[in-house]
Amino acid sequence: MKKGYFVTFEGCEGVGKSTQINFLKEYLEQTGQQAYFTREPGGVEISENIREIILNPKYTNMTDKTEMLLYASARAQLMAEDIIPKLDNGETVFCDRFIDSSYAYQGYARGLGIENVKRINEYVVEGYMPDLTIFIDLSPDKSFRRKNKNVILDDRLEQESLDFHMQVYNGYKEAERLSNGRVISVVPCEEKQDTFEKILKVLRDRDIIK
Amino acid sequence: MKKGYFVTFEGCEGVGKSTQINFLKEYLEQTGQQAYFTREPGGVEISENIREIILNPKYTNMTDKTEMLLYASARAQLMAEDIIPKLDNGETVFCDRFIDSSYAYQGYARGLGIENVKRINEYVVEGYMPDLTIFIDLSPDKSFRRKNKNVILDDRLEQESLDFHMQVYNGYKEAERLSNGRVISVVPCEEKQDTFEKILKVLRDRDIIK
Repeated sequence: MKKGYFVTFEGCEGVGKSTQINFLKEYLEQTGQQAYFTREPGGVEISENIREIILNPKYTNMTDKTEMLLYASARAQLMAEDIIPKLDNGETVFCDRFIDSSYAYQGYARGLGIENVKRINEYVVEGYMPDLTIFIDLSPDKSFRRKNKNVILDDRLEQESLDFHMQVYNGYKEAERLSNGRVISVVPCEEKQDTFEKILKVLRDRDIIK
Repeated sequence: MKKGYFVTFEGCEGVGKSTQINFLKEYLEQTGQQAYFTREPGGVEISENIREIILNPKYTNMTDKTEMLLYASARAQLMAEDIIPKLDNGETVFCDRFIDSSYAYQGYARGLGIENVKRINEYVVEGYMPDLTIFIDLSPDKSFRRKNKNVILDDRLEQESLDFHMQVYNGYKEAERLSNGRVISVVPCEEKQDTFEKILKVLRDRDIIK
């Protein structure tokens, strides 16, 4: 049934995830390799609409369960409309954030429990779990310092405290332990290009790209 | 912990559910009895915002899982923000549609399976299942005829075919069977006032109202 590779990128805010994804996109274009890139929450119209509710900074009273279920509903729609048809068609799909974000943010940092979040999300994803998840492994106390504090955090989740983001980091590490080798940590280097070389190596070792 | 009564109203489109709820509201006001009325999906700002996505007629490609999870997320928010505090405060809460709508529409009629929908929704509702659910038991083939076809069905769910609404009805009957007596069927009479008398009797027999 499933033919294409499904690879997700995870990491705390400000670790350079978007930069690395852009490097990958450019590299694949330059070397003539086809791949599809999408992101969460969002990616298709209904999910982008759900994303607006999730990230709306005025919704400070949103409950943890509501947040988790909204992510799950946006994921269900993105899967059905976009990711599953592409994988079934043999395409390689890269997604910026996916199920492990729910484990780390809602399951661990918000305290809903990774098991509860897993139960609902495995139902959403069914047979389409990522083949590989690259976790850019930098703890927020390091990345926040690195950014010289001139970052503007302007959505509801970015505005959380450093403590919260440290919990997210711990949640990712827990998700990695529970993943049976699906989640691979890539510790970023001083130079972004060196980090990218590490990512390329992980993807090449699994024959996902050349 | 939980002190107030929690009563929900269910039924297919066009069975006169809103009319009966309005009768009840008026009756309680006239007899000086306090109660709180709300509805699903919606009731509070975040949930009303989710409702807009669910009912948007242009989202014809919304998947069944997305729909079910959006209802669950709207429910989680309404529970936390509104229903649970009121029940904890000893108030009687009446809600127009609740968990059995998810069982009937998404679980049964959409085919997701009542068990799957139940698992997620019991997690959402936790210890706050309704004490009583009044199901206005009229099958759509009868109510659609009764309304002389001059009804305007203008949201995404109302636009479904009669076949679909018959499936919803069967789903309600199945939810009733699975409810261990929580769901009580009230078959409507020719005269709305007679139906209301039946509902009053059910509520009085359980000491929910006088």
